[in-house]
Amino acid sequence: MPAPVDHDARRRHIAERAGALIAEGGLEAVSYRRLAADAECSTTVITHYFANRHELLLWAYRAAAERSQLRFDTALTESGGDLVASLSALLPVSPDTVEDWRIYFAFWHTATIDPVLTREHRWWLRNCRRVIAELLQRHHGIEPKRARHLARMLLTLLLGIAAQAMFDLRGFTAGRQRRLLTDQVAALGFGGGPQ
Amino acid sequence: MPAPVDHDARRRHIAERAGALIAEGGLEAVSYRRLAADAECSTTVITHYFANRHELLLWAYRAAAERSQLRFDTALTESGGDLVASLSALLPVSPDTVEDWRIYFAFWHTATIDPVLTREHRWWLRNCRRVIAELLQRHHGIEPKRARHLARMLLTLLLGIAAQAMFDLRGFTAGRQRRLLTDQVAALGFGGGPQ
Repeated sequence: MPAPVDHDARRRHIAERAGALIAEGGLEAVSYRRLAADAECSTTVITHYFANRHELLLWAYRAAAERSQLRFDTALTESGGDLVASLSALLPVSPDTVEDWRIYFAFWHTATIDPVLTREHRWWLRNCRRVIAELLQRHHGIEPKRARHLARMLLTLLLGIAAQAMFDLRGFTAGRQRRLLTDQVAALGFGGGPQ
Repeated sequence: MPAPVDHDARRRHIAERAGALIAEGGLEAVSYRRLAADAECSTTVITHYFANRHELLLWAYRAAAERSQLRFDTALTESGGDLVASLSALLPVSPDTVEDWRIYFAFWHTATIDPVLTREHRWWLRNCRRVIAELLQRHHGIEPKRARHLARMLLTLLLGIAAQAMFDLRGFTAGRQRRLLTDQVAALGFGGGPQ
């Protein structure tokens, strides 16, 4: 008897391969034919899992966003709630994170225009502020209102650093990105170490 | 006798119309035929002014970047060197600035991959840090090294705020963007008013 098909895993695999094509060539690079070749499946399998190209792109975006969240959660656990260590995991400091930022950038123009993508991306930005605020409350004893305020500032720093580093990866090494983040976290009057 | 043709003005006009198409539909939206209709010229005129599509896109990017610089310079002069007022002029706080950010976002993915666009965009990021550092030196009496350091942080804030506001323009009103910037400038231990 063949093993049962794990549909979630297959859907995710196809979405992740679509993400890889997007990272390389932008949203335009995703055609069903090219994706089928890349994901080693038929175009029928793709149309089975995704109602249309728009839905496929949405899932590719989500797959990247979920990877980012997993990176943050892992760094948070491993560092015992260290702020800079947890946030740094989201910066473009490795081939994988650089690929994810390429995917995000490929979506940003469309995400200012397409209402579904706007909503999705806005949700993830809010989610990001929420998980940072939770970190601040749980591991640094900061009260909710101030935690939300600081989380907004910290997400601002994160996006601002990535938006420079991605165009100058030699200049913005992992170490330099982390120092920039550390300096700016310090400027917020906040050491960043777990309490 | 007909008036002499101002070639710079025509080139700029076409580049700006290309920018408007990009803001609406991304880089893919720029075809010579569509641009010719939009700029009210023939495709021959376009091919006369731009060696190829890549050069046309580069000029469209530059036209947007030059508009941003003009906005900054104007705000700087009008405010007598006020930091928040000058930087705010670069945030997506009006239909024109939102259009410019749409153009930037349309380029960002390509600018991580295409070496010519990477170089161009990096140049503008550096230019932006340079003009901010000059503002800090001239109008706030900050010594060069610290001015460069603060300029890096201020550009980070600017990019980070825009990268949230563009996906939630109702939430991030002009006033709220300015307050976020003011708060974070204050957190840098720096009032921002001219000295």
